[in-house]
Amino acid sequence: MSDAAANNDAPLMESSHNNVRWMTLNREKQRNPLSLQMLNALIDALDRANNDPDVRAIVIAARGPVFSAGHDLREMSKQEGEDRSAQLQRMRLILDTCSRMMLGIVNSPKAIIACVQGTATAAGCQLVSACDLAVSADTASFCTPGVNMGGFCTTPLVGIGRNVHRKHAMAMALTGDAFSAEDAVRFGLINECVPADQLLERTTALAERIAAKSAQGIRHGKADFYRQVDMPIEDAFAYANEAMVRAMTSEDAEEGKAAFFEKRPPVWGDA
Amino acid sequence: MSDAAANNDAPLMESSHNNVRWMTLNREKQRNPLSLQMLNALIDALDRANNDPDVRAIVIAARGPVFSAGHDLREMSKQEGEDRSAQLQRMRLILDTCSRMMLGIVNSPKAIIACVQGTATAAGCQLVSACDLAVSADTASFCTPGVNMGGFCTTPLVGIGRNVHRKHAMAMALTGDAFSAEDAVRFGLINECVPADQLLERTTALAERIAAKSAQGIRHGKADFYRQVDMPIEDAFAYANEAMVRAMTSEDAEEGKAAFFEKRPPVWGDA
Amino acid sequence: MSDAAANNDAPLMESSHNNVRWMTLNREKQRNPLSLQMLNALIDALDRANNDPDVRAIVIAARGPVFSAGHDLREMSKQEGEDRSAQLQRMRLILDTCSRMMLGIVNSPKAIIACVQGTATAAGCQLVSACDLAVSADTASFCTPGVNMGGFCTTPLVGIGRNVHRKHAMAMALTGDAFSAEDAVRFGLINECVPADQLLERTTALAERIAAKSAQGIRHGKADFYRQVDMPIEDAFAYANEAMVRAMTSEDAEEGKAAFFEKRPPVWGDA
Repeated sequence: MSDAAANNDAPLMESSHNNVRWMTLNREKQRNPLSLQMLNALIDALDRANNDPDVRAIVIAARGPVFSAGHDLREMSKQEGEDRSAQLQRMRLILDTCSRMMLGIVNSPKAIIACVQGTATAAGCQLVSACDLAVSADTASFCTPGVNMGGFCTTPLVGIGRNVHRKHAMAMALTGDAFSAEDAVRFGLINECVPADQLLERTTALAERIAAKSAQGIRHGKADFYRQVDMPIEDAFAYANEAMVRAMTSEDAEEGKAAFFEKRPPVWGDA
Repeated sequence: MSDAAANNDAPLMESSHNNVRWMTLNREKQRNPLSLQMLNALIDALDRANNDPDVRAIVIAARGPVFSAGHDLREMSKQEGEDRSAQLQRMRLILDTCSRMMLGIVNSPKAIIACVQGTATAAGCQLVSACDLAVSADTASFCTPGVNMGGFCTTPLVGIGRNVHRKHAMAMALTGDAFSAEDAVRFGLINECVPADQLLERTTALAERIAAKSAQGIRHGKADFYRQVDMPIEDAFAYANEAMVRAMTSEDAEEGKAAFFEKRPPVWGDA
Repeated sequence: MSDAAANNDAPLMESSHNNVRWMTLNREKQRNPLSLQMLNALIDALDRANNDPDVRAIVIAARGPVFSAGHDLREMSKQEGEDRSAQLQRMRLILDTCSRMMLGIVNSPKAIIACVQGTATAAGCQLVSACDLAVSADTASFCTPGVNMGGFCTTPLVGIGRNVHRKHAMAMALTGDAFSAEDAVRFGLINECVPADQLLERTTALAERIAAKSAQGIRHGKADFYRQVDMPIEDAFAYANEAMVRAMTSEDAEEGKAAFFEKRPPVWGDA
């Protein structure tokens, strides 16, 4: 683990247990904003986890009543002594870093679960949408309130709009309302909501079950899924068939079949 | 308001209240068909509302037990003295006008809510699907019965197929059944259904809350959403990031941030 | 009917009743695997049904506690005396045949309903996703367990990923868990689940109702739906408008309108 992991003041805490890497947003008082610092901390932490053979699943969690409030409004505003052009340049850097982080989750070779203990707002809600799976406390809420600030949650809707039906995405964006965890389950934005005091336990159980699967299978399967799902169906089949031949003849697949026929637990290769 | 607004016999009634433009299908006895006259009335009314700075949200409603029965079957049939070629020409005109109206809703710079008090059939159901949001009475129903008439609701499925999962779209189209408002909520075709006697009150409240938001934010955000949602995700982020920079530096956004930091209500620019 | 239909030992039983062709997977003891033999039997049976003017709807059902366990693992493994290259060649043939069968369902001119009495696993679950509609017993379950075998259900996710939201698809693929029929309804993977002892009766009723509709309408409408749903919306409307003109001037549509105005039941043309 990096030094950051040992540092209780780091914006992002990292820890590992039973092959699950936990990344915990650690700016509770500021409502865990996706500041440039936090975004870069997430990018670096994902990079470490992606390359760590002991990490077989990743959880993104947070401390405090807010999961993440999204971008830091003050950081997005014009700074003292800054001209317009410099401000725009800086905003572009933040947004590009943010989408790089979100795509980094989608493109990570490991399964990533959002563990949502509180309010997920704007880019914080987008962070939930970017993860492969999401579990929340039944007290959490989900909100894209840009419209209340004279804007619109345009970038969060890139992720959310690929998770839920259009009318649900537009309900979130046009009202700016906080939607309940139950609504988020109904929309398909999260997989399940559980009693708040069971959130850690349930997320841990899910992550550890996935960590016990073949990491090779997940590495290729996740990439192939996000790749084929946007193709025309004939192309998707042609692409998936070739991927499937590779997947079914991988080391882990040979081990899987052998273990199955020998009625013993499989022993998977490294992540 | 146009003269039409004052005319109780107009196919489409228009009225405004608290910055919400109501357009009410007013051919109750004919079951509010989307005749060429009605389609053109909707196109004209949308054009007026789009260009009226006082209109900040739009509701499409209807009178009577039927929201809209879709195309006028008699108008779609061969007319007396008409040859085949003239009939096809006329059908094309009606269908082109219809899709121009539907796309006009999607491309309108203002949020548009369907207020569905009764049966929404065929192109009438498509009209619901084209709106950004939809609220219905719990007694309303939703139906694509072309298959009962020897055809298929092929054009309605353009809209409906972009609102709901494939198996739900095919269930509607292959059976031609009337689905309940509850089913429509479950499918994602509408946002919510409410007791019939609360429909106007609830739709009014929703529309007025949206009308109180930044019209600039909605104008750009709505267009950007429908644009990016069909792009590959990397292109969508690149497009949305630029849109977000513009959105966050708009007049309304500067006002929004200022109001937020000054703890006062924002004063938005015109729609 | 073919000779196969009369053969109780055939991998696929075929029978017809009230214009509905039933195709029943008949390898109960082997858990109805989609072996090369079964895939070719399905392709041939679909071909027969597609070209039979008396068949107006198709049901794919199965015998025993398992709907289908997907590919035959032993058939997918290296055979005695086979070198690597020959194995890969054979796997490609099986997967290509499988996707040809799945696309054959999508491209069939007739409505196809999955009748799921038991566990639908991997490619067996994909078979459910490929059908236009699906009804299951409330005791059925749905599972993509490739990840438990060192792989990933990459090809099943081509179909499933076009039926359900991404987080639901990933929950199935990453956990390999068996999901309940109720979950499958919630995800949109199936249309409804019914008490197990009513499954045949309910599926029969649905299939016969669809068989009583215009086969011409369904033939064109089904093809047009799957074609337009992946197009940009403007192209989809242009395409669907032309299709609609043809549909509304077909023989069945003329009969449908005539019957409607003459208040008599329509008499449709052949399937």
